[in-house]
Amino acid sequence: MRFFSDNAAAAHPKVIEAIARANRLDTAYDGDEWSSRLDGAFSDLFETQVRALWVTTGTAANCLALAAMCPPYRAILCHRDAHIENDEAGAPGFFTGGAKLALLDGQGAKITPDSVASACDRIRNDVHQVQPAAISITNATEYGLVYTTPQVAALGELARSRGLALHMDGARFANALATTGDSPADATWRAGVDALSFGFVKNGGLNAEALILFRPELADEVAVRRKRAGHLLSKGRYLAAQILAMLEEDLWLENARAANAAAQTLARAAPHRLVYPVQANEIFLKASPDEATALRAAGFDFYDWAPGEIRLVTSWDQSGAPVEKLAEAIVRL
Amino acid sequence: MRFFSDNAAAAHPKVIEAIARANRLDTAYDGDEWSSRLDGAFSDLFETQVRALWVTTGTAANCLALAAMCPPYRAILCHRDAHIENDEAGAPGFFTGGAKLALLDGQGAKITPDSVASACDRIRNDVHQVQPAAISITNATEYGLVYTTPQVAALGELARSRGLALHMDGARFANALATTGDSPADATWRAGVDALSFGFVKNGGLNAEALILFRPELADEVAVRRKRAGHLLSKGRYLAAQILAMLEEDLWLENARAANAAAQTLARAAPHRLVYPVQANEIFLKASPDEATALRAAGFDFYDWAPGEIRLVTSWDQSGAPVEKLAEAIVRL
Amino acid sequence: MRFFSDNAAAAHPKVIEAIARANRLDTAYDGDEWSSRLDGAFSDLFETQVRALWVTTGTAANCLALAAMCPPYRAILCHRDAHIENDEAGAPGFFTGGAKLALLDGQGAKITPDSVASACDRIRNDVHQVQPAAISITNATEYGLVYTTPQVAALGELARSRGLALHMDGARFANALATTGDSPADATWRAGVDALSFGFVKNGGLNAEALILFRPELADEVAVRRKRAGHLLSKGRYLAAQILAMLEEDLWLENARAANAAAQTLARAAPHRLVYPVQANEIFLKASPDEATALRAAGFDFYDWAPGEIRLVTSWDQSGAPVEKLAEAIVRL
Amino acid sequence: MRFFSDNAAAAHPKVIEAIARANRLDTAYDGDEWSSRLDGAFSDLFETQVRALWVTTGTAANCLALAAMCPPYRAILCHRDAHIENDEAGAPGFFTGGAKLALLDGQGAKITPDSVASACDRIRNDVHQVQPAAISITNATEYGLVYTTPQVAALGELARSRGLALHMDGARFANALATTGDSPADATWRAGVDALSFGFVKNGGLNAEALILFRPELADEVAVRRKRAGHLLSKGRYLAAQILAMLEEDLWLENARAANAAAQTLARAAPHRLVYPVQANEIFLKASPDEATALRAAGFDFYDWAPGEIRLVTSWDQSGAPVEKLAEAIVRL
Repeated sequence: MRFFSDNAAAAHPKVIEAIARANRLDTAYDGDEWSSRLDGAFSDLFETQVRALWVTTGTAANCLALAAMCPPYRAILCHRDAHIENDEAGAPGFFTGGAKLALLDGQGAKITPDSVASACDRIRNDVHQVQPAAISITNATEYGLVYTTPQVAALGELARSRGLALHMDGARFANALATTGDSPADATWRAGVDALSFGFVKNGGLNAEALILFRPELADEVAVRRKRAGHLLSKGRYLAAQILAMLEEDLWLENARAANAAAQTLARAAPHRLVYPVQANEIFLKASPDEATALRAAGFDFYDWAPGEIRLVTSWDQSGAPVEKLAEAIVRL
Repeated sequence: MRFFSDNAAAAHPKVIEAIARANRLDTAYDGDEWSSRLDGAFSDLFETQVRALWVTTGTAANCLALAAMCPPYRAILCHRDAHIENDEAGAPGFFTGGAKLALLDGQGAKITPDSVASACDRIRNDVHQVQPAAISITNATEYGLVYTTPQVAALGELARSRGLALHMDGARFANALATTGDSPADATWRAGVDALSFGFVKNGGLNAEALILFRPELADEVAVRRKRAGHLLSKGRYLAAQILAMLEEDLWLENARAANAAAQTLARAAPHRLVYPVQANEIFLKASPDEATALRAAGFDFYDWAPGEIRLVTSWDQSGAPVEKLAEAIVRL
Repeated sequence: MRFFSDNAAAAHPKVIEAIARANRLDTAYDGDEWSSRLDGAFSDLFETQVRALWVTTGTAANCLALAAMCPPYRAILCHRDAHIENDEAGAPGFFTGGAKLALLDGQGAKITPDSVASACDRIRNDVHQVQPAAISITNATEYGLVYTTPQVAALGELARSRGLALHMDGARFANALATTGDSPADATWRAGVDALSFGFVKNGGLNAEALILFRPELADEVAVRRKRAGHLLSKGRYLAAQILAMLEEDLWLENARAANAAAQTLARAAPHRLVYPVQANEIFLKASPDEATALRAAGFDFYDWAPGEIRLVTSWDQSGAPVEKLAEAIVRL
Repeated sequence: MRFFSDNAAAAHPKVIEAIARANRLDTAYDGDEWSSRLDGAFSDLFETQVRALWVTTGTAANCLALAAMCPPYRAILCHRDAHIENDEAGAPGFFTGGAKLALLDGQGAKITPDSVASACDRIRNDVHQVQPAAISITNATEYGLVYTTPQVAALGELARSRGLALHMDGARFANALATTGDSPADATWRAGVDALSFGFVKNGGLNAEALILFRPELADEVAVRRKRAGHLLSKGRYLAAQILAMLEEDLWLENARAANAAAQTLARAAPHRLVYPVQANEIFLKASPDEATALRAAGFDFYDWAPGEIRLVTSWDQSGAPVEKLAEAIVRL
């Protein structure tokens, strides 16, 4: 029973079926019928005209968006614990051609208009210091916290007032929305988000993510950059089909709700152990080395996160008995 | 009946089945059991210790290899019509950080020791001119020609004598070997090839290619560059499983033989129209606009390549009736 | 008596004096009084509002301009023998972050609207091929030919109609204008040039070149890129002072006229040997190895350019006896 | 009376004279007699075989060295207040092709083996996190502190044990040595430094800095990168001549001693106001806005550094009356 990462979970059967159904000759790259439906499908979902491009990883989605938003000689403001800073091998530097990540502090990997504004204010406006061009936030954050829609909107307003673009790394965007109940539109472009990395792989997808551009004029450049980065697959229909399957009947939301529910089951088992409130599908627990050992002995796998701290991640397909058993094991500690 | 590109064909059913079979929880990235078997499987195939990394596109395979072989301030020698020059949106410049492609002429997109040597000799050995670091050849070439193993070996010898690395873009490596009958080992490292982009997607795969490093010491750098380029998929097992399915019982070779056989059927239909000898699965035919129109009216689709020239590409799953019918239609022109 | 390169000549005494005069405390970087006068001085010279930035090399001037005009994923059209392709160690790739130089043919390193248009037409308008963004021409060319103002204007018109920027590498701009007699304005922005690398170092300067931006809105980006490339000298006044000295009383034009006159003296000595018409200060002569040896034995140094061909370059300070003697030696061959 | 920056000071008369003396035809680039003497002159000074390349800015020296020491996909460890992080417009990202600066804390912009080791220890050794390749320290630091030779040696030892290269930004290296009295050799390569940006411009030079490579095998790559970055001036002799003039009779050390002595005069005027001990030629003083205004009213110019803090920098040519007057004005506050 593994609670390492939603990255490791199986794909939803409907995703596998969609791939199998797409298995016939069609136009190469993104000229096929499935890929051609993406713009429309996401425009419907977001209640506005968007451009949507498939890619295979969140890193590609994040960094293609950032490269279109930030020239090589400027900076992207993000949290010190952001995935783009910590877990993408320097990909933002590669895709942008050397732009800088300017790192902010903040509880639970969240940033605020205040932290952004004061970071900007510390940058002298001259050619010697790197001027900011964009903000990137992760929702849900790397610690499983969710930005409320008003919080995003406050960042969006600040971004506009400072001439900065706003990117959202939504590797767990579905989990965030499953929690807030807000509409995709409200949570993004209406709150000032210019581009969203809409994650599916952590949420029951196989290997397709969507990059949503709320400023459609960015799409042509992003499409070229995608090709140039080796991310224009020649049989794109197998990616588009996965994504469309996830959108159908809101499977993406259903999966996220399941994962979040499992996380709540675990959170309730040990409210006093929680390092952060559990708002999505990640649970950070205080647990001594002996306690961690005991849980492992009981058959549960997970990461040690920090001294005296473990991380549990629930997936779309983890519910019922295994989760209940882990909850009981935690209670018993 | 479409003869646009092997890129557009369906995936082989065994590939789809392999994906379905891999659909269970396992370690993320390339820590899973399928990915872990790649090095061994390719080491067996190539009769030497290699490192093998999955990626999703030939562009990624080519450019990750080239970036590890050529620093930003040097050049890669390749044919003027090479895929890396013509069809990858400048990806080599992106991945290498600005290295130059030095372009060579040669019939049918083939280069020779002579053309390489004389290109090198024209470069003054000073800091003002960009010095070469690597050679890249495509086998089978962009015009469907196959390098014989002695031809590759002659390039390999020259490469060694000049201190250059040798990369092979093997998007249609299977088709080349199906023609020569040579062993994978003879056709590559024994002939001096340092890295091979081993293509599967054009040959019945879905979205997995393999980058084979015959100098295993390059692998750690390439692995980092793969992650940094957003090409380390979190559920890598679905890529590895595809590749392993292609290797099983030499499915890769069987598929290539089928595509090549279809190409020969077409070639025999119009030997006097052939722009190049047909040695793999691409056929370039002289055909007037009226003749092209006639073929299209008969239900066949393909690219106009140049004035008075059309390109037909056969796929692993094109055989029997449709190919015979196209051959007949060509004869009838 | 060396005729290797105008690069190697001494600086004009007035330039040395200007440096000495600027030797007092002032604001660092380009905040000093000399640097502050550049925009005005060049705006006067060019009869329009320009921005002018000092740099220390033609490579820096060329590549800073090109980086502001061409994103990493597009191409710059230039002649196959352009300095940016042949003699700058791949600097355009470095400064642009991997943009491509698309190489054109043409007599004497000149390109034409036809050669540019047909190069553009060969590029498929899709994401697989690198789309052009700019044209770069060298005036006078690497073979000492001069673009007439109507020739530049024709390229400028084509550039506009294709949405391309137009850059002029004017390492020997002064020599070109000394020949045509046209005004700086007519020869540049009125003919559609967006940016000019205005060379002084080959023309009696010490180590200061000027980058002239006829689209002033590019200047802020270029200024940041200059700093980022390590080209914002902390004591910029010594560069600005050199340039101002060159502009004073048209010293730049006077020097160029002297060098051109010396070149004409040599050209007249052997009209039948000229590989190209002599229009600036470079002379390419047919000369057998024995003839080259004879000239060297007579005390003259120069480059062998190609088999049976030598290159002579005259400088601002080469006139009178040494040039006459070389002319005589050539006649005597 | 300006105490803004040593960057703004005049050049030493001997430097101007050296430029004037070098004003004659010689081989272009760095093939001239002055440039050819640099390796020897610095090898003598450092008591070992080094390679020495002139450049025109500290940014160029720093970033060329770092690019040769750190591949694009790795990181350089430096202090949060390092010049390369704060005042070079992101140049390290540009020259390295996107490498990361990993920022350390530490009093007075100094880092320690402990701060480096713990930063390294926090980096997981996998492909997701950017692995370190080099350390860069500034000596004297951005706050005017000097690393003792044993402190450098401790960092050098740590660097070796972790497989990291060690770079020293010596924009004020002369000031540091004027304080410690240590030999150039002891303070650098004997302490484990691999490359030194040896600054002259802040110390009476005009526009020449030297990059000293204690690992001579790096020089060929650096020379190519220098050209590629537009930093190979065509008349390099004017740079080399400056540097040689600074080395002659230890002018570099004499100038630094003068600047340091002036700084000590100011430091003695207000020991209780010092934010940092004064070890080189920078003085950071606590001073209220009113006090700063009073000093300015008395004719002294300088930067406000932080709320309640001003920065004074002394130069090689500031001594005697103006410094005494400033010291008195500080005492009077």
